[in-house]
Amino acid sequence: MNTPAFSLILFGGTGDLTMRKLLPALYQSYVDGGFQPSSRIFCAARSDFTDESYHVWMDENVKGHIKDRFDDAQWGSFLGHVSYLCLDANNTDSYIPLKEALEQNNNERVFYLATAPSIFEAICTGLAHHGLNKDARIVVEKPLGHDLQSCQEINDVIGQAFEENQIYRIDHYLGKESVQNLMALRFGNSFFEPIWHRDRIANVQITISEELGIEKRGDFYDETGAIRDMVQNHLLQLLCIVAMEPPASMDANAIRDAKLGVLRSLKPMSPDDVLNNVVRGQYTAGTVGGKEVPAYVGEEGIKKGSTTETYVALKAEINNWRFAGVPFYLRTGKRMPKRMAEIVVQFKSVPYELLGKMPVGSNRLVIQLQPEESVRMYFLSKRPGNQMRLAPVHLDMDAEDFFSERRMDGYERLLLDAIHGQLGLFVRRDEQEQAWRWIEPIINTWTDQNVAPKMYMAGTWGPPAANALVARDGFNWHEEL
Amino acid sequence: MNTPAFSLILFGGTGDLTMRKLLPALYQSYVDGGFQPSSRIFCAARSDFTDESYHVWMDENVKGHIKDRFDDAQWGSFLGHVSYLCLDANNTDSYIPLKEALEQNNNERVFYLATAPSIFEAICTGLAHHGLNKDARIVVEKPLGHDLQSCQEINDVIGQAFEENQIYRIDHYLGKESVQNLMALRFGNSFFEPIWHRDRIANVQITISEELGIEKRGDFYDETGAIRDMVQNHLLQLLCIVAMEPPASMDANAIRDAKLGVLRSLKPMSPDDVLNNVVRGQYTAGTVGGKEVPAYVGEEGIKKGSTTETYVALKAEINNWRFAGVPFYLRTGKRMPKRMAEIVVQFKSVPYELLGKMPVGSNRLVIQLQPEESVRMYFLSKRPGNQMRLAPVHLDMDAEDFFSERRMDGYERLLLDAIHGQLGLFVRRDEQEQAWRWIEPIINTWTDQNVAPKMYMAGTWGPPAANALVARDGFNWHEEL
Repeated sequence: MNTPAFSLILFGGTGDLTMRKLLPALYQSYVDGGFQPSSRIFCAARSDFTDESYHVWMDENVKGHIKDRFDDAQWGSFLGHVSYLCLDANNTDSYIPLKEALEQNNNERVFYLATAPSIFEAICTGLAHHGLNKDARIVVEKPLGHDLQSCQEINDVIGQAFEENQIYRIDHYLGKESVQNLMALRFGNSFFEPIWHRDRIANVQITISEELGIEKRGDFYDETGAIRDMVQNHLLQLLCIVAMEPPASMDANAIRDAKLGVLRSLKPMSPDDVLNNVVRGQYTAGTVGGKEVPAYVGEEGIKKGSTTETYVALKAEINNWRFAGVPFYLRTGKRMPKRMAEIVVQFKSVPYELLGKMPVGSNRLVIQLQPEESVRMYFLSKRPGNQMRLAPVHLDMDAEDFFSERRMDGYERLLLDAIHGQLGLFVRRDEQEQAWRWIEPIINTWTDQNVAPKMYMAGTWGPPAANALVARDGFNWHEEL
Repeated sequence: MNTPAFSLILFGGTGDLTMRKLLPALYQSYVDGGFQPSSRIFCAARSDFTDESYHVWMDENVKGHIKDRFDDAQWGSFLGHVSYLCLDANNTDSYIPLKEALEQNNNERVFYLATAPSIFEAICTGLAHHGLNKDARIVVEKPLGHDLQSCQEINDVIGQAFEENQIYRIDHYLGKESVQNLMALRFGNSFFEPIWHRDRIANVQITISEELGIEKRGDFYDETGAIRDMVQNHLLQLLCIVAMEPPASMDANAIRDAKLGVLRSLKPMSPDDVLNNVVRGQYTAGTVGGKEVPAYVGEEGIKKGSTTETYVALKAEINNWRFAGVPFYLRTGKRMPKRMAEIVVQFKSVPYELLGKMPVGSNRLVIQLQPEESVRMYFLSKRPGNQMRLAPVHLDMDAEDFFSERRMDGYERLLLDAIHGQLGLFVRRDEQEQAWRWIEPIINTWTDQNVAPKMYMAGTWGPPAANALVARDGFNWHEEL
């Protein structure tokens, strides 16, 4: 699908996200098939750049984040589509050059707010003041609030200038090929749906682990913690993709209705549930990737004696006919042994071990999102020879060998979707707020009952309690064979 | 599993089967791990060979059929285990040297009747006369009769000297790794059984095709035809493996009980069913593999105007809860475009095409037995990119890459099973006779109603009626992508 002519405005044009993710993703799209001549990327920020000096900044700060296919000539012509706009979000006059630039054509208009949410209101007001909110789309990125109320306030602010169907709340995990392919496997084949339910699935595990600590984000992170930073959004969104009913259609709202159905079916956690089914953790000093790293409380920007969690593991349950009684184990943490994101659908064992003792958990589907993307089926196959001896094998269900197309990164895919006006992979307001409704009692119980995080050494898979959470149901966290 | 010390007696020691299949298979077993020092292969026939001259005969006639791993040194020491016995089946005295040789040790004793069934009685009587039937096993090979009665007569003859659990009726297709792996996939994993029934399977197709015509077997073949030569045994046995209920255990009789259950559930064919659901074919002159070949009736040994069939396609139905209403299409023929044996389990389409129009038959499991062995799953996967576009892919479920073990050929596996006393992959008398009970009405209807074979050109996939048989149910014969 050819990319239509677009005008993409990146607010926060000198920020981390623009530098590390957005401009590199746009470069990859450019390499794929070029842009229409009138397509422009406007990077807007307060700093005093010209187009030329901004291009120099890009050379110095963006190029290094382009992982493959870098080519000087392509880069040069890509830069030709990038302009800089000096813009003070609070000053409505400073939007005039933007307005003039946008009015030169009928390009698809996409505003990307890669800024702190504190200036969303100013930007929305500024855009609306000049009528730039009409026929445009706005992309926003987490964090969108730290609880239900603040999330609603941000949504209200954006909602004053933009209709819900103009608002693209991005969750880049949803843009991953492997997540999309999970939907393709489920709804495009007759193999999986018949076994996609409580009779056949023993448990589901969703993990997002990072090797990194909090880097330079100490001030922010210490106010946030893992449950707000990762669970409320990414982990719950992935859970929705696994657990959703077949949507009525592939329309954006049908997909989001199906996901909302899952969020609404999540069994609410009582304070006792929180104490029993949620493990809160924080890392102590340790070794990650062969390097000694300090404890969380010793990192820059962290309050002395902070009890913010850097790790969460929890058991969620879905109160509906499809998944009642099937535990969904979610976990995420910083300073883990490796960076990894995966969804593991663990099937029940055979009802009777006709062919002899089987390894536990031999049947599972593993959707890996990071560091590499794959959809892998683990099962038992006969070992060649004179006897019926089975051995574990695995196959890649995304069968990359069959396709010549390059896999896009999540941001690249979602930026294109925004330009194309495809809302399906973006999070709707009611989903986001429903996720907060489910998360809030966890945070409240921690606060009300002074639940201190359990300590885990940096470079390990979290507190022992996280293993116990799974083990007491008779399961294990999946490990790569 | 180490091969125990054995004494294997091949009656028909100068015959085609011994030369092409049995001795080459035994050579491969030998290469795998040698034989115990006392293990011996006695090739028995009427011709006047010494061990030495028989070894020369083997050099000239067997070596060429060894497809891989031939090595002069190995061959030389393999020959050291092979003796020749000059034996007239009808002369009980001529069994004395065999008796003396066998009594030198306590080796596992296996008689393989690689002869015409007409001398089975003489051999069994001769062996029993000397008490050689005690603690021994006997392997017999098709053809075992041309109808139920003659089959029963042969079984009675063998049964006078051997108990049923001493009798190994060989069907070499059952010895194939891919057929075994189908059982491993079904009964060793929880993925397949939940979809292995009428709600999820649209149809099953089993094909055994040959490029060859009738070669030098014209006299025999013209009396036999494809339904006796292939359908009554191989195709029905493969059908049993696909359709069997999970056996109570992996004991030989439990497996064979389960297969018998399928044969007993086959819907009997009325004369009308035969006319509607069975296609009888015979090849005319044509081109196979770029070579012009004569019509069947022009081949050596064929009676003028013969109406013997060289091709059968039929639709079988299984009257049980698992498979009621699921057509099992079987076909076999000579002078087809290629040599191939495969089982195709075609799953139903998704109930609703949420992701757009899907190619028909995109979900299937294909067990290929010839020319190569594999178990392959065909499904739809997402094509990388900005849209939900699906494309057909396939994966090898036997995942050969995971295993270092060599795959054995069917004969090799089954010879070893006979030496080990593993009966599970051999056909029990009641199975064999039940298969005849189901086949006989087809042959009788052809005879009673003078059903002439429909003609097909050599080098094609059979008469058009065979396509119509499948097409009128809305299906197609599977073709490799």
